[in-house]
Amino acid sequence: MPAKSPVLVDLKFNPESVAKALKSFFADRGSINLADPATKGVDLSHVDYALLWKPDVDLYQRAPNLKIIFSGGAGVDSLITAATPLDIPIVRFVDRSLTVRMSEWVVLQCLMHLRDVCGHFRHQRKRVWGRPAGLEARDVTVGVMGLGVLGLDAAAKLKVMGFDVIGWSRQKKQIEGMETFDASELDAFLAKTDILVGLLPLTPETTGLYNASLFSKLRRDGALGKPVFINAGRGKSQVQADIVSAIETGILGGASLDVFEVEPLPADDPLWGLENVVITPHDAAVSEEYSLMRHVEEQIARFEGGEPLQHVVDRSLGY
Amino acid sequence: MPAKSPVLVDLKFNPESVAKALKSFFADRGSINLADPATKGVDLSHVDYALLWKPDVDLYQRAPNLKIIFSGGAGVDSLITAATPLDIPIVRFVDRSLTVRMSEWVVLQCLMHLRDVCGHFRHQRKRVWGRPAGLEARDVTVGVMGLGVLGLDAAAKLKVMGFDVIGWSRQKKQIEGMETFDASELDAFLAKTDILVGLLPLTPETTGLYNASLFSKLRRDGALGKPVFINAGRGKSQVQADIVSAIETGILGGASLDVFEVEPLPADDPLWGLENVVITPHDAAVSEEYSLMRHVEEQIARFEGGEPLQHVVDRSLGY
Repeated sequence: MPAKSPVLVDLKFNPESVAKALKSFFADRGSINLADPATKGVDLSHVDYALLWKPDVDLYQRAPNLKIIFSGGAGVDSLITAATPLDIPIVRFVDRSLTVRMSEWVVLQCLMHLRDVCGHFRHQRKRVWGRPAGLEARDVTVGVMGLGVLGLDAAAKLKVMGFDVIGWSRQKKQIEGMETFDASELDAFLAKTDILVGLLPLTPETTGLYNASLFSKLRRDGALGKPVFINAGRGKSQVQADIVSAIETGILGGASLDVFEVEPLPADDPLWGLENVVITPHDAAVSEEYSLMRHVEEQIARFEGGEPLQHVVDRSLGY
Repeated sequence: MPAKSPVLVDLKFNPESVAKALKSFFADRGSINLADPATKGVDLSHVDYALLWKPDVDLYQRAPNLKIIFSGGAGVDSLITAATPLDIPIVRFVDRSLTVRMSEWVVLQCLMHLRDVCGHFRHQRKRVWGRPAGLEARDVTVGVMGLGVLGLDAAAKLKVMGFDVIGWSRQKKQIEGMETFDASELDAFLAKTDILVGLLPLTPETTGLYNASLFSKLRRDGALGKPVFINAGRGKSQVQADIVSAIETGILGGASLDVFEVEPLPADDPLWGLENVVITPHDAAVSEEYSLMRHVEEQIARFEGGEPLQHVVDRSLGY
């Protein structure tokens, strides 16, 4: 029996967390962690598998015989570049914990805007007993853009909390108990949406999608008064200058952003200081190293056992 | 057929909202709204039904022939006084919307502490990109005190969000999928609890229940580091000086309070300014006048049709 290929690892995460997690995985085949200086210049031509997040630019030249690329996160835009060989399957990271934490963040942000947490904190800082709020979730329609694993889980939990939930995806999806819209029906979807939740991958079609024109099409006579924009997908899908001006002019009543055009968000960015804007440091659902490596082990076992890989990216769609 | 009794209304809510809602209800029998100056001194001796929230102290003398008292809220402590005749049934306000909004508030507060919203806002105000958070709901045990309609709905929704949920009630309740504790098992319940959610009625037994001794028994080695106290029941169940000192000394890591010993909370109260303490103005679930009056109409129809009343308070228990 030939020796099993090691797993090449190039994850631009916290290096200590990655190194620690690697000790518990791939015992039968070993791993080559490029964050370890000892790997500088080692031969990678025999490696079948690579686990990558923002890999070195010369990685595909150094490892020309890869059979599978595993993404270190749910998004794969950093792996779909001109340098990436077209014939190697890319496997997305789909994980229970990552999904659950993303839904926590989305439900939290929707409830924060429903119950005006920012306004309550403004009162609290002034020691003012404010007027009671009377809205409930079913008065508000949340429109979820992106109906993959993350979008569907968030939508289901938003419904349990009582929100009216509708969904949008590029191609029409039939989903029990939820009105859905496709690419050709975007304006109709926006016109019904009080809180827009973005969970889209970054592709040429979604780059700059959340802009002034889109914000102006959201429902303006809903229970919240003004619409709210929430994005936990990718920062380059939003035009941040348009978010700032939409908040300042009242086109948007609030926003929650976990992703940004440039991360970390620069200290001089106007978004930090805007009223009713919630900023989180791309931690809606961080990839947890142990879950990630367990997932890679499982998929390699499937592959070597002759079963089809799961969660393979469609390169023509970009996700 | 004798004329139907009007409904006596003494609700210390927003007077305009009450007057507006009354126009849409009790058309067949009329109502007498004590907030209307024209009712001063009118004869109430013929009135069968009263809808009350913090009623005038002489109300029971002016209306000595009441057959049913309807509470304007979920709590009934303001109606169980020495002045209230013992032989008149008191009907609690149980309402879908009130229940849903209470659960929204409870889930929102639990998620805010899980995801350290206060810490994120401190970073945001300083324009600092913080370290990502990695906890998920199932790492945290929420202990719900009070397993009535509100407690059970909140517990079910916390479970959907992934929290580990346990419950406490005076008398043991068997609930599918949830570990429960009774009065004799309070210490064991507290020792497992990371986030304590109080949804108890105010009774002699619950007055001052949430105090330094109780806070010191909460779990200290849980995923959050320090336990959190959340109260949306009644303010007089908590000893506020003990909450302040527990936060200041690190016995508690945070709190969310919707109710207070004195409301509105005075501007000089130290609670307003404490780190990781969330103050809301008793608006977790305000009684909505239209729902309330619909509920009263339904219960009067049951009563006059010979059916038993629902949600009748057990005066010996005080709730």
